[in-house]
Amino acid sequence: MHATRAYLDWNASAPLNEAARSAFVGAAGLANPSSVHAEGRAARAAVERARGEVAALCAAVPANVTFVSGASEAAATLLSPEWRFARSRLRFSRLYMSATEHPAVLSGGRFAPDTVTRIGVDGDGLLVLPALEAALAAHDRDDGLPLVAVHLANNETGVIQPIAAIAAIVQGAGGRLIVDAAQGGGRLSLDISTLGADFLILSSHKIGGPKGAGAIVAASDLLVPVALIGGGGQEKGRRAGTENVPAIAGFGAAAGVAAGDLAEATRISALRDRFAGTLRDRLPDALILGHSAPRLCNTLAFQLPGVKAETVQIAFDLAGVSVSAGAACSSGKTARSHVADAMGFDGELGAVRVSIGPATGEAELKAFDRALAGLAARRRAA
Amino acid sequence: MHATRAYLDWNASAPLNEAARSAFVGAAGLANPSSVHAEGRAARAAVERARGEVAALCAAVPANVTFVSGASEAAATLLSPEWRFARSRLRFSRLYMSATEHPAVLSGGRFAPDTVTRIGVDGDGLLVLPALEAALAAHDRDDGLPLVAVHLANNETGVIQPIAAIAAIVQGAGGRLIVDAAQGGGRLSLDISTLGADFLILSSHKIGGPKGAGAIVAASDLLVPVALIGGGGQEKGRRAGTENVPAIAGFGAAAGVAAGDLAEATRISALRDRFAGTLRDRLPDALILGHSAPRLCNTLAFQLPGVKAETVQIAFDLAGVSVSAGAACSSGKTARSHVADAMGFDGELGAVRVSIGPATGEAELKAFDRALAGLAARRRAA
Repeated sequence: MHATRAYLDWNASAPLNEAARSAFVGAAGLANPSSVHAEGRAARAAVERARGEVAALCAAVPANVTFVSGASEAAATLLSPEWRFARSRLRFSRLYMSATEHPAVLSGGRFAPDTVTRIGVDGDGLLVLPALEAALAAHDRDDGLPLVAVHLANNETGVIQPIAAIAAIVQGAGGRLIVDAAQGGGRLSLDISTLGADFLILSSHKIGGPKGAGAIVAASDLLVPVALIGGGGQEKGRRAGTENVPAIAGFGAAAGVAAGDLAEATRISALRDRFAGTLRDRLPDALILGHSAPRLCNTLAFQLPGVKAETVQIAFDLAGVSVSAGAACSSGKTARSHVADAMGFDGELGAVRVSIGPATGEAELKAFDRALAGLAARRRAA
Repeated sequence: MHATRAYLDWNASAPLNEAARSAFVGAAGLANPSSVHAEGRAARAAVERARGEVAALCAAVPANVTFVSGASEAAATLLSPEWRFARSRLRFSRLYMSATEHPAVLSGGRFAPDTVTRIGVDGDGLLVLPALEAALAAHDRDDGLPLVAVHLANNETGVIQPIAAIAAIVQGAGGRLIVDAAQGGGRLSLDISTLGADFLILSSHKIGGPKGAGAIVAASDLLVPVALIGGGGQEKGRRAGTENVPAIAGFGAAAGVAAGDLAEATRISALRDRFAGTLRDRLPDALILGHSAPRLCNTLAFQLPGVKAETVQIAFDLAGVSVSAGAACSSGKTARSHVADAMGFDGELGAVRVSIGPATGEAELKAFDRALAGLAARRRAA
């Protein structure tokens, strides 16, 4: 392993930032927040402080934040046909989603596979809005309402979906909109009202917080999915199990930092463009996915014609540069990229993802350039 | 708050032990274990080390340990009618459980409420074995097999169930046995073969590890419940979502400590008996729940006739002594005790639970005695 490595895989897991680490370690020894004694109340206070911080990141009401173990659990919870609306039961009969959702959403949660409809994206990865409109217009409301899930930004390409426009379509069809915003924190505004989402999915470790915490942020407290994990009355009965106090405390601190990171988006975007520039210089035939679409400030995904992303990833790793070949969800198994497929690229090749963050600087850019130079030389020699 | 408090609520959450804290903090900054680069491989190594440590605590095969966010998620995952057996689907048509299970099991998981049968316990809290036998004999196997869930030891009373005898009954009926062993770690042997369980449920923070991790330990790899959280291929597709690396690392270290704690059970049991002795001296009318049954070495649950457990708990808290009034699962809400109810005690009163651990000593015993003396004085004055 190289003495200093360049970590360019922030979308897989952002390095734990100092504020989050401090809150996390500080809360490590706290008691069970459901205990009513003094130790329990101290743990409760840490959880509720974090709830306020996560709510603030989304301009939401703290009471509408439900802590879960991560974004995958949040998706499994929200993607449910069965809900409660105030005191009544409410049923969603079909789930609509973009074809480029994260696997946690793509799995469909508690919807039967034949009650899930995928809506295509264009060559830039943007949801085809008329296709969504047409699908929702054809929805049979006799069995239940339509539930729609579209991510704010894609984890592999960084392509940003026009959530406000999508929300208007969903609202017009009497549906509800779940927005997986796991990749948006610190990079885009997550103001839930402006976005028009009914529910946001957040992940702590994607925004510089510890692993093991995520949140469902709701626009109102009226509509609640049937709990995925039942038992104790934690999280108002929405999610049983002792709260993961240290991860939640760290998540709260990270949410506070992420709110401030928004100011850095322009700088990070310019740095990312320099990564893209050196890529163009070294490998002029590289294809950047979502090049013409609005993209996250920190993400650069590309394909090299005839070269598997995995091959590039391994070469970079040996050169001390950490990037990913697609998403890091499959225990080292590199599958074809459903995102590249949906955008009309060669999914078999995968996609090399370079994702940076506030701590990325010149040293990482230089290491990336060196790794590219080595790759280019080997390609010429081959 | 008192300068030094006596924490006697280990069953709600055991204090984080030093080995676990060190592993937890040391793993705080690790990357995504599904990433194939060097940083990802380091995170993977930490997870797999912990898997070995948790497996060793149960004398199980590491590959049969699935990490989840905690015991409640483990229960929600295992309490499923739908399973895979090798490559086939397998269905359990009815869930049988003791009446004193933890709320996470009592909720029934993914079983419809009308497919759950509760089996009674006797006045000492022990499962009525002939009732289990009769229920399983009456089970209609045309719709599917019987699934049985019985905890190793009760969280409120510490009463230990005769798991080997129960396992024989379940096996004789062609069923499968899930054992919630969350309260057993470090107090009882969790050898899965000796117990005869098909699945064990473990919780990190109940054995001195951090919150946010738990495990399903299986006796074989043939029978797997349909995943509760789908998406990425983590945990061999059994549980999607980025692994909670620091909590898992801390859990592994705690499992190592717990294995050694077994040697302390006799000492802790003697100390617990001294807590019981001072209780008898100060409040001779106190009723100890499960007094004649085998109980965890560390647990003492009692009722005071005519006094709500909540009242005792609050008085103790003011005196700097932390105990619980029933389980700590309900966000400070003190419900009646279903455990006391099932044992024929007055469930409305709840039960005061004193639970100790390896770090408990003379100072805590003295504080407990002082709190009891104060309570006895107020009772005489009333």
